[in-house]
Amino acid sequence: MRGALFDPLFGASGVASRLDDAAWVAALLAVEVALAQSAAAHGVIPATHAAAIAAASPDLDPAALGLASVEGGNPVIPLVRALRAAVGPQVAPSVHPGATSQDVMDTAAALLTGWAGEVVLDDLRGAADAAAALAAAHRDTPMIARTLGQHALPTTFGLVAAGWCAGLDRARTRLAALLAAQPVQVGGPAGTLDGLPAAVVTDLAGRLGLADPGVPWHAERSRIGELAAALGVAAGTCAKPATDVVALAGVGEVSEAAPGDSSSMPHKRNPIAAVTARGAARRAPGLVAVLLAAMDGEHQRAAGAWHAEWETRADLLRATGGAGARLRVCLTGLQVHPDRMAEPLGASAGVGRAPELVDRTLAARPPR
Amino acid sequence: MRGALFDPLFGASGVASRLDDAAWVAALLAVEVALAQSAAAHGVIPATHAAAIAAASPDLDPAALGLASVEGGNPVIPLVRALRAAVGPQVAPSVHPGATSQDVMDTAAALLTGWAGEVVLDDLRGAADAAAALAAAHRDTPMIARTLGQHALPTTFGLVAAGWCAGLDRARTRLAALLAAQPVQVGGPAGTLDGLPAAVVTDLAGRLGLADPGVPWHAERSRIGELAAALGVAAGTCAKPATDVVALAGVGEVSEAAPGDSSSMPHKRNPIAAVTARGAARRAPGLVAVLLAAMDGEHQRAAGAWHAEWETRADLLRATGGAGARLRVCLTGLQVHPDRMAEPLGASAGVGRAPELVDRTLAARPPR
Amino acid sequence: MRGALFDPLFGASGVASRLDDAAWVAALLAVEVALAQSAAAHGVIPATHAAAIAAASPDLDPAALGLASVEGGNPVIPLVRALRAAVGPQVAPSVHPGATSQDVMDTAAALLTGWAGEVVLDDLRGAADAAAALAAAHRDTPMIARTLGQHALPTTFGLVAAGWCAGLDRARTRLAALLAAQPVQVGGPAGTLDGLPAAVVTDLAGRLGLADPGVPWHAERSRIGELAAALGVAAGTCAKPATDVVALAGVGEVSEAAPGDSSSMPHKRNPIAAVTARGAARRAPGLVAVLLAAMDGEHQRAAGAWHAEWETRADLLRATGGAGARLRVCLTGLQVHPDRMAEPLGASAGVGRAPELVDRTLAARPPR
Amino acid sequence: MRGALFDPLFGASGVASRLDDAAWVAALLAVEVALAQSAAAHGVIPATHAAAIAAASPDLDPAALGLASVEGGNPVIPLVRALRAAVGPQVAPSVHPGATSQDVMDTAAALLTGWAGEVVLDDLRGAADAAAALAAAHRDTPMIARTLGQHALPTTFGLVAAGWCAGLDRARTRLAALLAAQPVQVGGPAGTLDGLPAAVVTDLAGRLGLADPGVPWHAERSRIGELAAALGVAAGTCAKPATDVVALAGVGEVSEAAPGDSSSMPHKRNPIAAVTARGAARRAPGLVAVLLAAMDGEHQRAAGAWHAEWETRADLLRATGGAGARLRVCLTGLQVHPDRMAEPLGASAGVGRAPELVDRTLAARPPR
Repeated sequence: MRGALFDPLFGASGVASRLDDAAWVAALLAVEVALAQSAAAHGVIPATHAAAIAAASPDLDPAALGLASVEGGNPVIPLVRALRAAVGPQVAPSVHPGATSQDVMDTAAALLTGWAGEVVLDDLRGAADAAAALAAAHRDTPMIARTLGQHALPTTFGLVAAGWCAGLDRARTRLAALLAAQPVQVGGPAGTLDGLPAAVVTDLAGRLGLADPGVPWHAERSRIGELAAALGVAAGTCAKPATDVVALAGVGEVSEAAPGDSSSMPHKRNPIAAVTARGAARRAPGLVAVLLAAMDGEHQRAAGAWHAEWETRADLLRATGGAGARLRVCLTGLQVHPDRMAEPLGASAGVGRAPELVDRTLAARPPR
Repeated sequence: MRGALFDPLFGASGVASRLDDAAWVAALLAVEVALAQSAAAHGVIPATHAAAIAAASPDLDPAALGLASVEGGNPVIPLVRALRAAVGPQVAPSVHPGATSQDVMDTAAALLTGWAGEVVLDDLRGAADAAAALAAAHRDTPMIARTLGQHALPTTFGLVAAGWCAGLDRARTRLAALLAAQPVQVGGPAGTLDGLPAAVVTDLAGRLGLADPGVPWHAERSRIGELAAALGVAAGTCAKPATDVVALAGVGEVSEAAPGDSSSMPHKRNPIAAVTARGAARRAPGLVAVLLAAMDGEHQRAAGAWHAEWETRADLLRATGGAGARLRVCLTGLQVHPDRMAEPLGASAGVGRAPELVDRTLAARPPR
Repeated sequence: MRGALFDPLFGASGVASRLDDAAWVAALLAVEVALAQSAAAHGVIPATHAAAIAAASPDLDPAALGLASVEGGNPVIPLVRALRAAVGPQVAPSVHPGATSQDVMDTAAALLTGWAGEVVLDDLRGAADAAAALAAAHRDTPMIARTLGQHALPTTFGLVAAGWCAGLDRARTRLAALLAAQPVQVGGPAGTLDGLPAAVVTDLAGRLGLADPGVPWHAERSRIGELAAALGVAAGTCAKPATDVVALAGVGEVSEAAPGDSSSMPHKRNPIAAVTARGAARRAPGLVAVLLAAMDGEHQRAAGAWHAEWETRADLLRATGGAGARLRVCLTGLQVHPDRMAEPLGASAGVGRAPELVDRTLAARPPR
Repeated sequence: MRGALFDPLFGASGVASRLDDAAWVAALLAVEVALAQSAAAHGVIPATHAAAIAAASPDLDPAALGLASVEGGNPVIPLVRALRAAVGPQVAPSVHPGATSQDVMDTAAALLTGWAGEVVLDDLRGAADAAAALAAAHRDTPMIARTLGQHALPTTFGLVAAGWCAGLDRARTRLAALLAAQPVQVGGPAGTLDGLPAAVVTDLAGRLGLADPGVPWHAERSRIGELAAALGVAAGTCAKPATDVVALAGVGEVSEAAPGDSSSMPHKRNPIAAVTARGAARRAPGLVAVLLAAMDGEHQRAAGAWHAEWETRADLLRATGGAGARLRVCLTGLQVHPDRMAEPLGASAGVGRAPELVDRTLAARPPR
């Protein structure tokens, strides 16, 4: 077992439960069932067969499926075998109609991504809302701006928080658009949609709440690259406020609502939520690089690049989702200390148009 | 000097000339001039001063500017000094009104990105058009699909090329949208827009053909991350066809219009354009990772993360642009050998809905 | 639960079981026990206390520990609490003597790395041995060399396999040296080794089978970077043969001993071991980048960079270990088809010094 | 032209001049000349031919060579053509004896790496020496240790600087070992050393001051991966002190000898050397990832992966070398402010074994 020890700390629990082995198996099965139903709806297989497939309860223990995957190279092969066994020899040929393993893997991954993505979006929204609340509350609270690590001129804490909010909102908007467009993949063995009317694909998309891509994209992975990129950008917009909070907590200008203690120094007030948000977010850029490199797959089904996507995408969702979740905790109820902020200001009081920029930023927030 | 030896080979010449030292200096100066004009238009400085600034011919040798940058940490500081010297003591205070170095660097980088981006978009379009032409011409040309490196079932070469086209179009569309939205950055020393009416920013954006971001984004780098990501995805959509061409050339099913020879084996027919497109594209994922990681900058001006952007963004534009340029060469006039494609097909003739999928892909191409 | 579904396929099962939640907890506890024993051996705490600590059976459910970690930011804090509770109030002050959380985390990670590293080394050795056997068996088997994807001149398959062997041996030698030098980390709260004689560190290292670093390295992470780099290089030396096998299997010159079938095409003979070795290996470069970037941590304990190491290092061990394990399967019993290799050779028969180079490579293999 | 504007700022000037277009051409020519001489020494070509080749002055303008490289895919092809033209038809066949383009490119790259590496090592040594001097001078200067961004317990600034020194020394030692082992590559068209006695390779290595690899390594890129990794680790050991300096300068505990000013805030004292060291170092991890991924090249000469190495390795040398050069400037003459360091200490005075650990670290420094 892995994940139980570190997921809570890195904020990944919510996302991870939607991406774990059980979720994968559920998604794979959901795709096979929906595919049978769509195929039946368009006369490719008998409706009674689709019903039998939907009603089947194959034994799909993830660990057993994992072991059985080794031979053929993916879990769809033993899953289809188990499903065929469960429905009996009459219905068996109607299982997995017109599809190939990649169709089911890619479509299941789109489902999982959507499930996990909901949590990510929610936490990004929560973090942005918390930043917005801080921005509004401290619209006029003066603090020193720091550039290149040095005291510069005054700004307001509200403007700092407004910048956090703007980044989080922007990243969430893009991610939400991509998540809403997660497509089914159906192409069959060679990607030629052989033996399946295009209407089946449209029907399947509707059934699963996914988008209809128009044509198979098994070997055209720009959608995966885009999703990876959007998650990477989102992680970056989480890292930035976390970094600022750690730095400001270091000089006492903010503190977390529930700072952590230490195994050796009980007096410490560690901004643990920010620290772990950073820890999670820093994992994203390398994972994005892996997924971008994986776009370069040969022919009609990449011999390795495709496989590299599976766990990397899940890791990236956990990293970004975790960063968002921890940042939300960090910013919700963040304690701001205007008196400490005032100390480095000296007599230089003007905060320029900072309050006005706060207003403008908050007014421009995207709708919920 | 660097770049002259390898840029042509990796397709970077067109992009690189818009990103070189001279281009940087031109962009920095253009920003200072336009900023003075915008400031004058809104009464911040006298109109005669703006005219003098626009008419000035400061000595801005890039190498000298480079050496003079070391002390202050960026080339804007000596450039402003030179510009002030050129306009004389009366006008000097009107140079760089209300701005800080980052404003000028970021805005100049946006300009440069737009200049270079034009070339990238043009080559991506050219490559996609070439792929589309191949798709149309070989809509019905049967070939074996290969999955996991093994012969699978028949498809058509047209469908393969249509997939290339779809990826390239998709990546270009996203990149074009981001390039069209490259924003000015104006915030002043602390990002509070102190001493400059917001209208100056809007005016400046119009003057430079850039977008008005509404609020300063000096410390909110999601736009940089998004651009990096889009370039990384575009590189991936260039790598894919290049990889396929190399593989298909290896079995004689395609050959480049002007294959390369060898220093030792004159009989070789190397698909050099595809090879170098791959070489360029493979550099992108790591560069994207650097730019995503650079989003995590502390406070109001990052002490290093910001600086890591400057050359990395240019390198990424060169890598992606180079990949696009070389792929365009590769695909334009690609020789297709249907007879060789027929060999592995045997009796298995049907190509499924491949031709229909070609039609659908080409019909869905975005407008020019 | 995650890992059960994909670990077998990607060869990670052996490594993963030495890195999972239970292994972490066991390693953390082992460090606390050994630290108490070393402290007792040097009079820092009573020997009876160390004995009580060693005999304690605290309830250390990973999931509970995970949840309890959130507050303080790492699992050592609740583990120490549980251990103190288990030994009672008298002995409790002797638990975790002179140490801070990072000491225990870093030392436990070194232990885990060693445990997992054994498996990685064994599989790299197995893969190299299999390559060496192929090299010896096919020392003189002519095949066409392919450069830039095109037929070049003849070589022997033995020389190809010898090159695989050389890379794997080289990477393993370096990795073995680093694994043998995995150090304990003891520095206390500020890294000043306050309250602990240096001899305790030496004693602890001996007890745990780790190296004595001489001075604390809590904030000097070059060892982590080096380890990451060596794992990344090892993954690369696994990717290379896997890529060659996929390509050679595509033209029928080799085939795996147990090729996989397909969910839709029973005639397929997919080189699944090579494919999944590549899938695992491709994840390594991005993970290495994360760990190299994490070297840049601020002050005496990094607020995020350190935390990013924990799971990334484990992921990298799984990726590299998985690649090695799958490559070993791929190469062990790889079927070589000299007749197919002969086809593209035509009359050009000479294989140069290939056999001699095979001999030289095999003679230079490092000792077991 | 590029590089003149930013190289000085990012410390890359020294390294870059050893890696630029002219250096590449010089290295390529040096390899061809030495190869002819080695071939002559072993009777492969006439000694008079080797002398003529050594005396030739072919016109090798990098820009012209760059344009002429496009057709064949690398600059060796036109360089060999120019060299043959320069020596006349009699001697021409003795040019490039038994070699292929990759032999010359790889060997030239090893030369360049050595040339540039000297500068990198020197700057790493200079930075480490400066850190050692600070460690010795401030062995007992108390300051607060900061963990997770918060004040922890006292340490000494000497111990902080000793940690910097240890990392820099360690990275330099490894890098020096790899640089000293940079090998020639000679294998001929198929890597079978056809037509060249092995003694030529040994002779060539001696002539060029490179190592004799024993067997060709054209397709076994672990050496490139190892070099990349060592450079990445070195960059990390530069980033760490730079990050600490920026942070400590932010609270006034240190300041650079020649801090930078600002285009808008003349009072600023920016730690520009540290800032730009960080800017350079942050580029390394992504570049390392590209080079590690490039190890995965197909067959006897990779169609793209190899090409991705060329400029990326140079970029990495510039990034790491630049970080070292700027860090050296930063640390040499760093101003330490014990009074400011004392402020956060309060009454808690003890610095544990910090001074002793400084002594131990300095005593363990590797020999020059």
